Amino acid sequence: MKIDVLRCVERLSAADNFLIVTHNRPDGDTIGSACALCDALRGLGKTAHIFTNSGITDTYIGWAKEYFAPAGFSAGFTVATDVADTDMFPDDFFGKIDLSIDHHPSNSLYAGETVLIPEKASCGEIICDVITKLTGSLTKHQADLLYIALSTDTGCFCYGNTTADALRCAALLVDAGADNKAINKAIFRTVTMPRILLEGMIYSNLIFKHEGKTVIATVTLDMMQMAGATENDCEDLANIPGKIAGCLAGVTIRETAPGICKVSVRTGAEIDANAVCAKFGGGGHRMASGCTVSASPQAAAELFAAAIEEAM
Amino acid sequence: MKIDVLRCVERLSAADNFLIVTHNRPDGDTIGSACALCDALRGLGKTAHIFTNSGITDTYIGWAKEYFAPAGFSAGFTVATDVADTDMFPDDFFGKIDLSIDHHPSNSLYAGETVLIPEKASCGEIICDVITKLTGSLTKHQADLLYIALSTDTGCFCYGNTTADALRCAALLVDAGADNKAINKAIFRTVTMPRILLEGMIYSNLIFKHEGKTVIATVTLDMMQMAGATENDCEDLANIPGKIAGCLAGVTIRETAPGICKVSVRTGAEIDANAVCAKFGGGGHRMASGCTVSASPQAAAELFAAAIEEAM
Repeated sequence: MKIDVLRCVERLSAADNFLIVTHNRPDGDTIGSACALCDALRGLGKTAHIFTNSGITDTYIGWAKEYFAPAGFSAGFTVATDVADTDMFPDDFFGKIDLSIDHHPSNSLYAGETVLIPEKASCGEIICDVITKLTGSLTKHQADLLYIALSTDTGCFCYGNTTADALRCAALLVDAGADNKAINKAIFRTVTMPRILLEGMIYSNLIFKHEGKTVIATVTLDMMQMAGATENDCEDLANIPGKIAGCLAGVTIRETAPGICKVSVRTGAEIDANAVCAKFGGGGHRMASGCTVSASPQAAAELFAAAIEEAM
Repeated sequence: MKIDVLRCVERLSAADNFLIVTHNRPDGDTIGSACALCDALRGLGKTAHIFTNSGITDTYIGWAKEYFAPAGFSAGFTVATDVADTDMFPDDFFGKIDLSIDHHPSNSLYAGETVLIPEKASCGEIICDVITKLTGSLTKHQADLLYIALSTDTGCFCYGNTTADALRCAALLVDAGADNKAINKAIFRTVTMPRILLEGMIYSNLIFKHEGKTVIATVTLDMMQMAGATENDCEDLANIPGKIAGCLAGVTIRETAPGICKVSVRTGAEIDANAVCAKFGGGGHRMASGCTVSASPQAAAELFAAAIEEAM
């Protein structure tokens, strides 16, 4: 059942022993939202913890670890933040979520009750409203956490989902003490040495097809090793080819094992990425799809260049 | 003499035949501010043009060209936007500026009258206030121009100068119709093919000294040629080394002619970039300085690695 923010605040006020659940491969929005809500509930004297999501990366672990649930914690009320569907759970929470707070239009209403505001650029903006109504205030630490949520889901206010409301919420968070300067520097303006070495190799080995309309990036196991890169250094690689002026179809081929490649396709409105990936047993959305193929990176590049030429 | 925004609006209301002057190597803030002000003055039925700054890059020419002054235009009132000092003029305007609108704390008060608000992240925010008070409104086109000014001077709200007021002004501009989605895509999320090839070479040839505390990037004439890069592809190269985690001193060495290199040094609070560059006859600020040396890029790298080691 869908509920509004006021009803959500009533439910949170009445409950205790909270377990807050983030989504698989957690990003700044799910983590920042969960931590801020957990912090606000604790500030009210309630017991609140976050389910220990093993997929959390170095970027966020320092912020989240103080909220992780102790072993054997028995939840009285379970909240999911920024989790669109049950296949995004980091463990078996099917049928166990009392309240879902989310901004994904695709939210499947899997929870007992759901606050869903799809106009919001981030779940963090909804949590900001919830905390303010729940506690009557917003601490500097909560503002930091919500700034992480909002800024990461909007690519530091650069992505197409950045609304006037998102910018206003950011202003409110900075007024409440969010250290946007330090957070931006750490999240958006710092790259690891392995990451920049890896980008150097990727950029130097780009394949341009169809007069630059198709750009193919390859990331081989050798490149990962030469750069000293790990999974922590590999965020957002799929968006690299699409940044290049004139690119209509960006393909990123990641060798995951010898002879096995994970392929991401990002397109503008002109080309159906889903149709391209469907030829190889994959799929997704019209402008963002993926699949896995049994081929070398070089062979995969030729396969996808041909498939995109057909789709053009 | 310093004046406030209201007095500035009175002066603009009373005058006509405006020439608006931008600074050398014009950026989004000086261009966006000048174009928006010019557009607002024309909207009031006044004659207003922008001095044709020959340094304007491809990024901004499309926005600015409709405002360029015709040959032989004789100005009745001259306004400088975002110009801190007379050495930043694109031509001889010494003693000829009636009004300077600026946010640089270092503004030398070279103009007859000056509106200086150093707390603002961009000159565009001041112009936004001026236009609203001058015309009683803000058109979609003016909002686009001011969004360019504000977003470029804050690195799309990512730099340390991004205040709550800057975010609120951005929200106001988006509400007024600024197409932040398209502008962000064009300015912040698009790179040219030569630029990405050049970055690939720069990243692949980084020099790490002092356990990664010093990072040196070199841009040779050969690299420029191999990438097919021109000056249009070279914005912000000086900030590349400083992005790498652990870097305390970032040096960018640009070969401008055989045996001649322009060197930019960017540091954190620990190292005095000005002192490092002063050794080579250059200077600037404590955290951002530059100089020119007669040396090959390789020799320059060794010189600066040694100078930074001394300064550490």
